[in-house]
Amino acid sequence: MLTPALTQEFKNIVGADNVFTDDADLMTYSYDAAVVKPVIPALVARPTDSEALGRVVALCGENGLPLTVRGAGTNLSGGTVPTSREGIVILTNGLNRILEINEADMYAVVQPGVVTAKFAAAAEAKGLFYPPDPGSQAVSTLGGNVAENAGGLRGLKYGVTSNYVMGLKFFDTKGEIVKTGSKTVKCATGYNLTGLMVGSEGTLGVFDEITLKLIPPPAHRKAMVAVFDEMIKASEAVAAIIAARIIPCTLEFMDNFTIRAVESYSHAGLPTDAAALLLIEVDGHPAMVEEDAVRVEEICRRLNATDIRVARDDAERDKVWAARRSALSALAKLKPTLVLEDATVPRSRIPEMVQAMQDIAKKFRLEIGTFGHAGDGNLHPTILTDKRNTEEWTRVEAAIEAIFDKALAMGGTLSGEHGTGIAKSCFLEKETSLATILYSRAVKAALDPKNILNPGKVIGG
Amino acid sequence: MLTPALTQEFKNIVGADNVFTDDADLMTYSYDAAVVKPVIPALVARPTDSEALGRVVALCGENGLPLTVRGAGTNLSGGTVPTSREGIVILTNGLNRILEINEADMYAVVQPGVVTAKFAAAAEAKGLFYPPDPGSQAVSTLGGNVAENAGGLRGLKYGVTSNYVMGLKFFDTKGEIVKTGSKTVKCATGYNLTGLMVGSEGTLGVFDEITLKLIPPPAHRKAMVAVFDEMIKASEAVAAIIAARIIPCTLEFMDNFTIRAVESYSHAGLPTDAAALLLIEVDGHPAMVEEDAVRVEEICRRLNATDIRVARDDAERDKVWAARRSALSALAKLKPTLVLEDATVPRSRIPEMVQAMQDIAKKFRLEIGTFGHAGDGNLHPTILTDKRNTEEWTRVEAAIEAIFDKALAMGGTLSGEHGTGIAKSCFLEKETSLATILYSRAVKAALDPKNILNPGKVIGG
Repeated sequence: MLTPALTQEFKNIVGADNVFTDDADLMTYSYDAAVVKPVIPALVARPTDSEALGRVVALCGENGLPLTVRGAGTNLSGGTVPTSREGIVILTNGLNRILEINEADMYAVVQPGVVTAKFAAAAEAKGLFYPPDPGSQAVSTLGGNVAENAGGLRGLKYGVTSNYVMGLKFFDTKGEIVKTGSKTVKCATGYNLTGLMVGSEGTLGVFDEITLKLIPPPAHRKAMVAVFDEMIKASEAVAAIIAARIIPCTLEFMDNFTIRAVESYSHAGLPTDAAALLLIEVDGHPAMVEEDAVRVEEICRRLNATDIRVARDDAERDKVWAARRSALSALAKLKPTLVLEDATVPRSRIPEMVQAMQDIAKKFRLEIGTFGHAGDGNLHPTILTDKRNTEEWTRVEAAIEAIFDKALAMGGTLSGEHGTGIAKSCFLEKETSLATILYSRAVKAALDPKNILNPGKVIGG
Repeated sequence: MLTPALTQEFKNIVGADNVFTDDADLMTYSYDAAVVKPVIPALVARPTDSEALGRVVALCGENGLPLTVRGAGTNLSGGTVPTSREGIVILTNGLNRILEINEADMYAVVQPGVVTAKFAAAAEAKGLFYPPDPGSQAVSTLGGNVAENAGGLRGLKYGVTSNYVMGLKFFDTKGEIVKTGSKTVKCATGYNLTGLMVGSEGTLGVFDEITLKLIPPPAHRKAMVAVFDEMIKASEAVAAIIAARIIPCTLEFMDNFTIRAVESYSHAGLPTDAAALLLIEVDGHPAMVEEDAVRVEEICRRLNATDIRVARDDAERDKVWAARRSALSALAKLKPTLVLEDATVPRSRIPEMVQAMQDIAKKFRLEIGTFGHAGDGNLHPTILTDKRNTEEWTRVEAAIEAIFDKALAMGGTLSGEHGTGIAKSCFLEKETSLATILYSRAVKAALDPKNILNPGKVIGG
């Protein structure tokens, strides 16, 4: 329980200017981008150096204060929503230094509060490439990306955040430094705690420093938009491209509902009468890019694409991706509540999954816009609703469960990239087993015996 | 403690033919490829189906019998050496079925006892590629590879085993099934227990099924041998190739000592008067392969390579790689005891590391052959000795510690791919911190409270 004396201790550690206890301030940190119940914390602390961060964690640990670390709060599964009115929120935006970009060995060391896009730009300025690009990259932080194992548009070819975390320093609940991984490209020393920490949503430790892998940028790239007048054909083209052993950098799907929302929001010149679009980018050696682009076009035409528009330059390309990135914001404008799901299936099942989303929308009489990383099998069916309409909300909850059941029946998973958080922890047993949950809870209980690290996330409890 | 009644229970579960208790049999399972003290187990059980495996684990769990799972016993850190005369060894070679190779979704599901090379061949027969190729792939098992996070010759471009494990089913100490990961390319559901399990050396659970990622094979490849008459120049060429942002599939180093051993063993036509060789393969799109090969050759010539031999066909290429793969066996013939290290450094430090190995050999008056995955920063300095010579062995132990210290001083790691096992667990704190070891031990204690799963490995204790 937070006492005035403890509040003073927080002030002593991070400075009075970096402790917030006013209701108006606290309200700002009561929610994130997921549709879950907001919870107002007791205090927000904003450390600006590593030592202060460790001391804040230790203070919470000693006094049994539940803590939630927050980057930009853009996550979509409730991972940054405090779980109790007693909670402490630790803001990382004061820990925003890029400590090293090593060009020779192609890695970087960063603090958790560095903004994803800023980091990618800094790497690019040194001739290197950081591929993970979650939708919220303009504001999201690397610490948040690692905590949630954020995905993005380039996952198909380049993987997700976990593929780029080489090592971590993090604080345990005593504020002691745990070090895992290395600056070497291979590391088989000790347990792979790095693997465990990525995606653990702040429940097992508090990141202090993150070592990220960088790669040489692709020499060339080509983006195109394929227009379909049958949704099912577009989804079949996705499966056909993968089956042809072409691995585009990006292979995104957008249904008519999403196209119209995006076009009215971004005015990118998307064809609003199309049943579905595929947004595709191939990259790599110029000769390969040309060949892959031709083959992708052939496959799309074979599946009745009515038009293929190739971006003529970077400006056109950037326009396409900006439009795609606006999908969430564009849809959010249409209704008071937006539920963005990310159930994921093996890629060949995408046509079935697209059909299933239509059936579910019909069955539960809901508006569902579907878009997302089709090439990864990772669609984002997005339910537009109004949470205040309790009758409709009941149907929304039933539809969400139906989406999960469908994905699992196809050998899929509850979450491709948004994480488990609060939103999905109650569904975990559907996908795994009771023993899996007990095993996971044993890990958590051992590492956080007082249950202070972002309680209630991932594994419930 | 193993009683006759328990022995009978093992026989009831796996069949009397699959339980070994004779000293001669038990002796076979008392050691692996690492130089550590052999320990004879009490009983060896060989389950041939998943249910029997689970029951064997549960029986050990109920009765507090320490168990060590063994694939082919090729690991180099003592991970498959029993730690007690009371130990049960579970052989996985009866669990050797490839359960599924899914061509459309590019994954496979296998039992832990499948031999690595057989699996790679089965994938190849379906037009797919499983890149991890540890030196012992002809006999090593996939379960062992996952337990040790095995590397190989293609790590530079394609990564190591951990990069290909999509999901696992494993037994906890009660014999209950824990399920982690997915058949989808992205999965953010629950804790990333897959990441934790890979490389955990059988200390946290017993693998039942492994889901592995497969990729399209490269369209083209080109192998070459670059000959140097100065060792330091060869190592500088490694750093220069990486600095030029070329990512060969394979970039191997071999010093004169190793070249001579390999040549006398394999008769591959290697130049025995060379100070060092680089064995290089570039792969991918044909146009890129040609360009990369030209650039690699230019870099090597600039660093005084005296000859560059390009393999004219697959037969010549295979000969080069077979020769490289024979390095361990070739060196092992020279002296009774061979200590193969795998301390790893950031790649730009390879020239320094090669120099350091020479200095250490000189200082401790030892024969050290150095070869390995230079492109990964992962060299294998190999000390040739005779363990019975106690005076020399003292110098060997001092040299090993000097190698570790040198690697760590360069920002490297104790093990790039061989694992921590028994051999290196006592050095863990040098690289990490006491808090890291306590954190790791807390994980272990929570998941294996009776400490029966391969005790003493990774984190000591």
